Amino acid sequence: MRFGVLGTGSVGQTIGNKLVELGHEVTMGARQAGNEKAVAWATAAGGSARAGTMHDAAVFGEIVVNATLGTGSLEALEAAGSENLAGKVLIDISNALDGSAGFPPAVLSSSKDSLGEQIQRAFPDARVVKTLNTVNASVMRDPGLIPGGSSIFLSGNDAAAKETVSELLRSFGWSDGDLIDLGDITTARGTEMYLALWLSLLRKFGTSHLNIRVVTGA
Amino acid sequence: MRFGVLGTGSVGQTIGNKLVELGHEVTMGARQAGNEKAVAWATAAGGSARAGTMHDAAVFGEIVVNATLGTGSLEALEAAGSENLAGKVLIDISNALDGSAGFPPAVLSSSKDSLGEQIQRAFPDARVVKTLNTVNASVMRDPGLIPGGSSIFLSGNDAAAKETVSELLRSFGWSDGDLIDLGDITTARGTEMYLALWLSLLRKFGTSHLNIRVVTGA
Repeated sequence: MRFGVLGTGSVGQTIGNKLVELGHEVTMGARQAGNEKAVAWATAAGGSARAGTMHDAAVFGEIVVNATLGTGSLEALEAAGSENLAGKVLIDISNALDGSAGFPPAVLSSSKDSLGEQIQRAFPDARVVKTLNTVNASVMRDPGLIPGGSSIFLSGNDAAAKETVSELLRSFGWSDGDLIDLGDITTARGTEMYLALWLSLLRKFGTSHLNIRVVTGA
Repeated sequence: MRFGVLGTGSVGQTIGNKLVELGHEVTMGARQAGNEKAVAWATAAGGSARAGTMHDAAVFGEIVVNATLGTGSLEALEAAGSENLAGKVLIDISNALDGSAGFPPAVLSSSKDSLGEQIQRAFPDARVVKTLNTVNASVMRDPGLIPGGSSIFLSGNDAAAKETVSELLRSFGWSDGDLIDLGDITTARGTEMYLALWLSLLRKFGTSHLNIRVVTGA
């Protein structure tokens, strides 16, 4: 399948690599054509990996992945073009973090709004699915790093889009028991706000190979 | 040991009952003397259970538990009296939730401030430990409801106070492996903001017997 991955950082590169490994065609989108990181990534990734602009990546992808910094996501998606996102599954794995005051970054999401919702509102014809934003990139692509399995959440208004993303997550190694469909895109508030706890856990345990497992009783 | 439990709702009653069962003396504090719920609780709980005002409960307790609604906690603690909290361990199990617009309530905590910090700032001589606010009252008092164990967090500036609270949590049935000391009171932001995810999980699974287990990899 053809994927457009927006963002040239570690999340975009890690997800891009995983998709190439799984046999997909990937165009990584950067703000500028000829972006060094995107070109270097495409060269190293080999296979069908290509570098381009946000617009190129969105045109290319049957599925588009938003792996840009949360503070720049809306602008990146604007550059991608709403007409190139319309009708497509848009996987939003970014977080609304503001690191301008140092570590830990501030979490900008609230129980009144989330980045996932902002994206869905700005691009109403895209089929936004928020997922993977609660774990580090290495865990996103290799859930087996967490022994015994852990939970990964999906939020979105389009059930078929969530099923498409679930299939993709299974191909990454996430099991059916790991996947938790929280409901519509407003539930992205919870997973985005959770980042504040995740950042504390990161500092506490000193490893980004961490996640949570949801456990229920009788 | 003598406990003052501030708050007459289900959390206060459940924690109060557990403390009485464990052989502690408990005074439940209400806004008004002779509060019907507090009096009924004390009568039913038996043992050394008593009902009183916020002030009575704080004077009585060697340890004070804030189990009031988050939106009323500062006022309740003001009524308890800073002089009656000074030097004491103050266990804050409340959440800054605003239910005025219906379910789910809005989470008022942000990555800039939390209720736990507000309480510590307002009562600088109290030894505030935020804990238990990430689970339902029934799980607080009976962690065995969650098969295989789950995580419970502690935030606070006073290491000895956190050790005192850890001992208490162990007596409730939480194991050493369940307890996660996140650090100082600012880490209460993370556990309070997590409530947004918890509320989604509550709706998803239809049971309040739910929690998360933190899992780390190599």
